[in-house]
Amino acid sequence: MAGNSFGQLFKITTFGESHGPGIGVVIDGCPPQIELDLHDIQLELDRRRPGQSSVTTQRNESDSVEILSGVFEGKTTGAPIALLIRNKDQKSKDYSAIKDVYRPGHADMTFDAKFGIRDYRGGGRSSGRETACRVAAGAIAKKILVQRGIEIIAYTSQIGQITAKTVDIDCIEQNPVRCPDPEAALKMSELISELASRGDSIGGAVNLSIQGLPSGLGDPVFDKFDAVLSHALMSIGTIKGIEFGEGFNAITMTGSNHNDQFRASSDGLSLLSNNAGGVLGGITTGATVVCRLAVKPPSSISLDQSTVTNSGKDTTVSVKGRHDPCICPRVIPVVEAMAAIVILDSLLIQQSINPSI
Amino acid sequence: MAGNSFGQLFKITTFGESHGPGIGVVIDGCPPQIELDLHDIQLELDRRRPGQSSVTTQRNESDSVEILSGVFEGKTTGAPIALLIRNKDQKSKDYSAIKDVYRPGHADMTFDAKFGIRDYRGGGRSSGRETACRVAAGAIAKKILVQRGIEIIAYTSQIGQITAKTVDIDCIEQNPVRCPDPEAALKMSELISELASRGDSIGGAVNLSIQGLPSGLGDPVFDKFDAVLSHALMSIGTIKGIEFGEGFNAITMTGSNHNDQFRASSDGLSLLSNNAGGVLGGITTGATVVCRLAVKPPSSISLDQSTVTNSGKDTTVSVKGRHDPCICPRVIPVVEAMAAIVILDSLLIQQSINPSI
Amino acid sequence: MAGNSFGQLFKITTFGESHGPGIGVVIDGCPPQIELDLHDIQLELDRRRPGQSSVTTQRNESDSVEILSGVFEGKTTGAPIALLIRNKDQKSKDYSAIKDVYRPGHADMTFDAKFGIRDYRGGGRSSGRETACRVAAGAIAKKILVQRGIEIIAYTSQIGQITAKTVDIDCIEQNPVRCPDPEAALKMSELISELASRGDSIGGAVNLSIQGLPSGLGDPVFDKFDAVLSHALMSIGTIKGIEFGEGFNAITMTGSNHNDQFRASSDGLSLLSNNAGGVLGGITTGATVVCRLAVKPPSSISLDQSTVTNSGKDTTVSVKGRHDPCICPRVIPVVEAMAAIVILDSLLIQQSINPSI
Amino acid sequence: MAGNSFGQLFKITTFGESHGPGIGVVIDGCPPQIELDLHDIQLELDRRRPGQSSVTTQRNESDSVEILSGVFEGKTTGAPIALLIRNKDQKSKDYSAIKDVYRPGHADMTFDAKFGIRDYRGGGRSSGRETACRVAAGAIAKKILVQRGIEIIAYTSQIGQITAKTVDIDCIEQNPVRCPDPEAALKMSELISELASRGDSIGGAVNLSIQGLPSGLGDPVFDKFDAVLSHALMSIGTIKGIEFGEGFNAITMTGSNHNDQFRASSDGLSLLSNNAGGVLGGITTGATVVCRLAVKPPSSISLDQSTVTNSGKDTTVSVKGRHDPCICPRVIPVVEAMAAIVILDSLLIQQSINPSI
Repeated sequence: MAGNSFGQLFKITTFGESHGPGIGVVIDGCPPQIELDLHDIQLELDRRRPGQSSVTTQRNESDSVEILSGVFEGKTTGAPIALLIRNKDQKSKDYSAIKDVYRPGHADMTFDAKFGIRDYRGGGRSSGRETACRVAAGAIAKKILVQRGIEIIAYTSQIGQITAKTVDIDCIEQNPVRCPDPEAALKMSELISELASRGDSIGGAVNLSIQGLPSGLGDPVFDKFDAVLSHALMSIGTIKGIEFGEGFNAITMTGSNHNDQFRASSDGLSLLSNNAGGVLGGITTGATVVCRLAVKPPSSISLDQSTVTNSGKDTTVSVKGRHDPCICPRVIPVVEAMAAIVILDSLLIQQSINPSI
Repeated sequence: MAGNSFGQLFKITTFGESHGPGIGVVIDGCPPQIELDLHDIQLELDRRRPGQSSVTTQRNESDSVEILSGVFEGKTTGAPIALLIRNKDQKSKDYSAIKDVYRPGHADMTFDAKFGIRDYRGGGRSSGRETACRVAAGAIAKKILVQRGIEIIAYTSQIGQITAKTVDIDCIEQNPVRCPDPEAALKMSELISELASRGDSIGGAVNLSIQGLPSGLGDPVFDKFDAVLSHALMSIGTIKGIEFGEGFNAITMTGSNHNDQFRASSDGLSLLSNNAGGVLGGITTGATVVCRLAVKPPSSISLDQSTVTNSGKDTTVSVKGRHDPCICPRVIPVVEAMAAIVILDSLLIQQSINPSI
Repeated sequence: MAGNSFGQLFKITTFGESHGPGIGVVIDGCPPQIELDLHDIQLELDRRRPGQSSVTTQRNESDSVEILSGVFEGKTTGAPIALLIRNKDQKSKDYSAIKDVYRPGHADMTFDAKFGIRDYRGGGRSSGRETACRVAAGAIAKKILVQRGIEIIAYTSQIGQITAKTVDIDCIEQNPVRCPDPEAALKMSELISELASRGDSIGGAVNLSIQGLPSGLGDPVFDKFDAVLSHALMSIGTIKGIEFGEGFNAITMTGSNHNDQFRASSDGLSLLSNNAGGVLGGITTGATVVCRLAVKPPSSISLDQSTVTNSGKDTTVSVKGRHDPCICPRVIPVVEAMAAIVILDSLLIQQSINPSI
Repeated sequence: MAGNSFGQLFKITTFGESHGPGIGVVIDGCPPQIELDLHDIQLELDRRRPGQSSVTTQRNESDSVEILSGVFEGKTTGAPIALLIRNKDQKSKDYSAIKDVYRPGHADMTFDAKFGIRDYRGGGRSSGRETACRVAAGAIAKKILVQRGIEIIAYTSQIGQITAKTVDIDCIEQNPVRCPDPEAALKMSELISELASRGDSIGGAVNLSIQGLPSGLGDPVFDKFDAVLSHALMSIGTIKGIEFGEGFNAITMTGSNHNDQFRASSDGLSLLSNNAGGVLGGITTGATVVCRLAVKPPSSISLDQSTVTNSGKDTTVSVKGRHDPCICPRVIPVVEAMAAIVILDSLLIQQSINPSI
């Protein structure tokens, strides 16, 4: 209710502020007898961590995770799995300047409006740092899904005006922007560096592709697979839009173009196109689930901006520190994690009525 | 869990198939002592009902609603409000032809994949008819919100390639496509009629604008106001994409352009722009919440389409009957209803910790 | 949240007041492809209905139920099942006398305190009539459980000072008090009649026995099988206490007496006693779940009682009408229904992680 | 769902095994701006900790708690509060003997049946140690309730055949059994010591009294105040029964004796008795909520008991170690904590529709 939990049968609850003692997550409902070690989780956390390359923040947070519960002799037990990441790179003094000033684009003003108080150090609870917990939990979900042949891939498809022309999955982790087109990746890096040097930031697009899903996931009315996935992904602070399959292109399409027609195939039926993006009537078809996300330019920029103090006086602010000039590369593991959590939860729910799924 | 409920404190549960005895909704958690009569609900249902104009389906369903509980002597009592709409225009024989055939774009195939059985008459539980229940429940939420000065307006901003150039709110209900630009509305109607005459359908865009919201609604992490609203709206079957504020435009924007700067004002602070669409860090700012929805072309078209039978044989199907060639006009009350439900729920949640909101 | 729903995967939501148009229930999450007809439900409703015998109320409410959704060609479809029971025997004028007076033992005063308004006709939402909806929903759960070899039996074990000395299950439905000891049943009936003739009422005890449960249902911490069952049963208005196995006797027992020791058996292990009542650490053992319930004497008595008006004046009230002098016989189907709902929900939850249960 | 969370608006999620790295709790939905320091929580933990006196276990676990999040500059911020208690007194070798043997009365067998795996060290997730987390979370709820004039008191009313004859609240914390009758307390201590010396254990009864509650808490149907409180309290492993007000005595009472009559009073109305235990129709009356709990004798006894190995062979077991011979004194802070959590949650829910409560 208070909004720090997500999922129904596979449910995660996160906690922690960016500059408090630590952040963490409790995963309740993880199936028992799954082999799990720290390395599974650390690997995904390392993909999200700051300081990876020239196009991300230069903060160096190692984000090492501790398993507090739920794993015994290398296997999950069905008990809740609690993961803790201590905050190391706190440097609280960096933030004293913004104690009383609302940074544009951030939650400073709205958190105060809601709760009448806030931990002003580096975004506190509203910091993007919270997403490390999602990644840690998602790593566990991912591990289970991989064993079922489900593969989740997100990548940067656009930064500013530069778009990926090709999609070579193997290239994604080979460049700092996580773009599947090596040429575009180079230009993207240059653009990001240029904006960073000006103290500014830039937006982008991330594509998500989920392969190997069985048909039958999701529910027909409010908990449509795509609706729950939208909830999950739109809850990532920097995402401002989502579309499935042809998405916003559907505005100008006719039904005869948009409908995915069926054809009989040896192993059941197949779809002649995938304009719907893998979901019909809220339930997965078995085709690849395809969606695209709009990622806003990071709000922390060092250029001067007009703002007000929390006592209502006009002022200007320049957000100092080592911030990401483009968040696409680092949001990708978060996107994959949230997708993994939604999928595993849907699978468990479906398994409750159809054990053979 | 089973996905026929939405909301936490103001919670709706819908039921019913398009060609069963009836459809309905139970609204649990409605505040007591609210004046409510049938007319409040019927008015919104009439906005959604088929047969309103030349651009919508010619089916004539009057959708008259009965209040079964929760209202006493004209006021809500705090007990659950159950609303029942009997199905009248059933014509079950229309659907016998599609009993064994999966209609492209519909949930026929996926419902079968999930449950191994389906009410094949007119979409059954997956029919758009289910949204009448959302509208009925939303009418109650809307009534409460209006009394708090909150106004929810949705309108058609685009059909095919035709876009509204002006936004005159007063025009919306004056034309059959619910477009705030009368000139564009005319062209949209013509386009829809043309496609209808060809047995085809067309997509569109719907804009949603919520004015008068207090700041402080929504939660900072998973239950961000925009994330929950995305869940609510993406759960409407025909919607394939959603964006807030500048949305997908943010891909090509810099932080210095996208950030909404603040200025002190007599009654607190104000935003110099609203690129974020009224939400920062998942919590409402007090500015207008603005979002845009991609509406797919209706899947029911009379053109021949390739498909398979439920026993896996290739065939073709032409969906006969009186279907909407464009669903934008009729999805608008549904969009408004879901928005109203999300807002009232958020308000009640916020009231639990801050009674003075 | 607002408290008219129960269950997680098999979830029921009830609605309706005793003297409004009708009462009903929406069952969400019922497994698909279950054969179901009206008769299954009506049978259980008839066990609860008033006017069955000399020891229950003489009101004659036939409580005929209508299936509004979720069943197609005699089978459940996975869609929510809505059931409606119209109120027939309304006689609203009976209740005008108590419009402004709080009946002792009833919810009149507290409903007003909570909501500031109430449907004063016959208890409104707080009427025991609400439990008919639980019985209807429970009938569906029961049908599924019977097919899995799970049997739920409740019976009257005590009325006033008269206790059942023997337990002959076959006798339960043979006498009006539903007591498994025919001799005690006769005395119980006489006692009830005597109290009824004096305008008074009497309490009793109901025992619940659940046979055939697999081990492994329930969760180790907050959702212990016995804790959730306690929630379910204590939510029946007339129940004031619950105990499992030896229950309150455990107060005077030693660990060496109370612990159920194990012995190896051909089909696994068996327990040498069942003092725990079929649950260890919140999870079913596979032994019979045994609990006992304290049922209060009905609050509606025709003797004069001191009370106050809703404007705070002292007065007296005598509750006229045809009320139950002892509710045990009619609460039994409600107890069984709530147990069935808890068990089926637990089974589905367990099935999500262990499909072979 | 997976059962490690409790509450709706004030929601706690616990984690941790008795002999893993640590145990903890995440409290989501705590109102902001509440002054909170470690001392508030430590005080309650110290009331529950082992090694307090001769009648409790001699294990010496200091249970020092760390606040990981949600508190800033001494106040709650509305963000989730995570508390961590490291396990210190692990002595894992104590438990190697019971690795393959099911201890009678414990969850060893059922946890295995459910999950197919278990952390066998000292009960693992099913250990009573888990309740320390409830106490820590309850301490926060209690602090808020005290400021609203709500007082929660639990005490030992019976051990074996020895009952408290008087109730002097001030005596409760003055004796090791937490009994409000000093004379009875002395006899209780002697009885417990005698049983401990024989390697056995003994049951008891705990009474709970909640004063200062407003009327209007709880919901009329499934979430009755007493039903939710029963769920909360029956989820404590050692509790086998609960009754409200006259409870099981109601079996032999008439309606004219059991009904609490009303009388007008200067500040509204008052009840002439409190047989209902402070709740009518599931909603608090404003009178003291009174309930009584049956506490089973601890299952860990050093006497030889018959049991089986997890491979199905007969054997005997004697549970060595420093165990509580009677758990009443240490379960009291747990009972109070769960009550506090239920009450605060109910208050927040009621506040959402009635801000002036």
